[in-house]
Amino acid sequence: DPSLKVLTLNSNPMLAEQIAEKIGVPLSKSSVARFSDGEVQINIEESIRGCDTFVIQSTSAPANEHIMELLIMIDALKRASAKTINVVLPYYGYARQDRKARAREPITAKLVANLLETAGATRVITLDLHATQIQGFFDIPVDQLQAVPLLSDYFKEKQLDDIVIVSPDHGGVVRARKMADRLKAPIAIIDKRRPKPNVSEVMNIVGNIEGKTAIIIDDIIDTAGTITLAANALVESGAKEVYACCTHPVLSGPAIERIANSKIKELVVTNSIPLSEDKLIDKVKPLSVAPLLAKAIIHVHEERSVSVLFD
Amino acid sequence: DPSLKVLTLNSNPMLAEQIAEKIGVPLSKSSVARFSDGEVQINIEESIRGCDTFVIQSTSAPANEHIMELLIMIDALKRASAKTINVVLPYYGYARQDRKARAREPITAKLVANLLETAGATRVITLDLHATQIQGFFDIPVDQLQAVPLLSDYFKEKQLDDIVIVSPDHGGVVRARKMADRLKAPIAIIDKRRPKPNVSEVMNIVGNIEGKTAIIIDDIIDTAGTITLAANALVESGAKEVYACCTHPVLSGPAIERIANSKIKELVVTNSIPLSEDKLIDKVKPLSVAPLLAKAIIHVHEERSVSVLFD
Ligand SMILES: Nc1ncnc2c1ncn2[C@@H]1O[C@H](COP(=O)(O)O)[C@@H](O)[C@H]1O
Ligand SMILES: Nc1ncnc2c1ncn2[C@@H]1O[C@H](COP(=O)(O)O)[C@@H](O)[C@H]1O
Repeated sequence: DPSLKVLTLNSNPMLAEQIAEKIGVPLSKSSVARFSDGEVQINIEESIRGCDTFVIQSTSAPANEHIMELLIMIDALKRASAKTINVVLPYYGYARQDRKARAREPITAKLVANLLETAGATRVITLDLHATQIQGFFDIPVDQLQAVPLLSDYFKEKQLDDIVIVSPDHGGVVRARKMADRLKAPIAIIDKRRPKPNVSEVMNIVGNIEGKTAIIIDDIIDTAGTITLAANALVESGAKEVYACCTHPVLSGPAIERIANSKIKELVVTNSIPLSEDKLIDKVKPLSVAPLLAKAIIHVHEERSVSVLFD
Repeated sequence: DPSLKVLTLNSNPMLAEQIAEKIGVPLSKSSVARFSDGEVQINIEESIRGCDTFVIQSTSAPANEHIMELLIMIDALKRASAKTINVVLPYYGYARQDRKARAREPITAKLVANLLETAGATRVITLDLHATQIQGFFDIPVDQLQAVPLLSDYFKEKQLDDIVIVSPDHGGVVRARKMADRLKAPIAIIDKRRPKPNVSEVMNIVGNIEGKTAIIIDDIIDTAGTITLAANALVESGAKEVYACCTHPVLSGPAIERIANSKIKELVVTNSIPLSEDKLIDKVKPLSVAPLLAKAIIHVHEERSVSVLFD
């Protein structure tokens, strides 16, 4: 379909390639280079006039570079008379800065929403927002896809016995519940308590994990402190083995070392954020969200509901 | 005056310090740090409620980082109930992307204007925009200061004999004219012609430079190709010696090497962009725009005209 254009920027070119292939269109010709002083230079090298355009870009690290690339691309598409400008954000950066936790803090997740709209985005397609309220930061339609089915199917194929789905904190219980439903398993919750400031947290496990295979699920794994402590606590409390999974492998700082040294048997993630060479250790298994995003793009282009993709 | 707050970000902390000192206020307490994954973390550590706030930040390299820091700071100030949010941009990055020179190009200079307004900026104070039309990209007041007086005064004190002010291209003639007026000197223009594509440019000099001390003036020196070729052409055509000056020392890529190896005797710049150690060679002389910016800030705070600072 010549009126559906898929463009990539620098965060996730492999995923964009996979998405375009699934849809059955070539990636549109464009380049994102840098001027000598580091400013972004974007060239769209084919006409996109009157087209539904889909820009694939996670605002993962370096978040600021990726956000600016995206805004500049949106500006270029707008001025080139695209019919619609659909921003496909497999990972929405700054999602954790979604409220004023302290006085005089910015709400950067809302700022980014405003910036995308100001640049000219007409729709956002994203995956597992850190807080689902971020949808409401936009005045344009937002389709939020979920990785739970993909992650669950992977574990289903493993045919593990006697599993329990574990939420690493109270905020993740809904997600754990969804996975547990798909795998027909019970859930457990890690109930973290910090007895005093600057004293390390105590991990109390709510639910029966004795002798079971635990699968911890989270949305983002960043420095991997929580998840590795949780895994070790589960094993110490009698779990037979511990798997972990998440949608967005931020994996910054000590994350990979911690995972390597932890009791986690395997960490299953998606390619919403690509893993650099040094992060591709044996324990880490990336699954592709390309089929899911490709479907969502086709639905949007054909003006069909995206919510049917949720089951 | 406790209702005037000066804040700095990461591009130009020394200049911000100088400005605050000139005004006679301490820099407001705030920090710009990074989370483990590189996302910007801003903390404003004192109340700015009801205040006129002035954020000092050049959007120089790394431009995208500096722009995002600035937008996030503006968001934080807005949510902390600042009365006004004045963005002091000694150097306005992306100014050269100010029009569609080719099909399907972005106009990033306009995008950045929109982003600043969306974040919540209420006024912009800047210095020598690459194109003065960029003022019109904003719907908020823009004060554009000029470095010509500062640069001219420096050369006046040198008491050079028989000088000629040289514009390195046709676009810079107005600026050269202003400097010539202040120094009571004639002007000359470098008339670049590219005989054929991919053939190097020929430098034709319009005006009398024979035996004179030439001072080339430009707004931005980036890779320094134009200015060093111009300097060498001037010497070959009989100029006694050649000085150069500009407002914004971008100095990317081969710039410093080219300047070091050129016939330029001295390059006078401002601190709109700070010079890293490796750029501080003997030939390069930075002048501070802190007094000028401090005056502009006081005028804005006291609701007096800034245009009186133009002479
Ligand atoms: N990039 C980041 N890395 C680590 N922490 C962050 C980041 N962005 C925001 N935060 C903090 O994370 C907290 C929100 O996380 P959560 O409670 O999991 O929603 C807030 O206190 C933020 O200050
Ligand atoms: N950061 C940059 N470095 C070098 N060239 C640029 C940059 N940004 C924009 N340009 C180009 O510079 C040209 C405009 O410069 P000018 O003719 O001097 O106004 C346009 O063709 C732009 O594509």
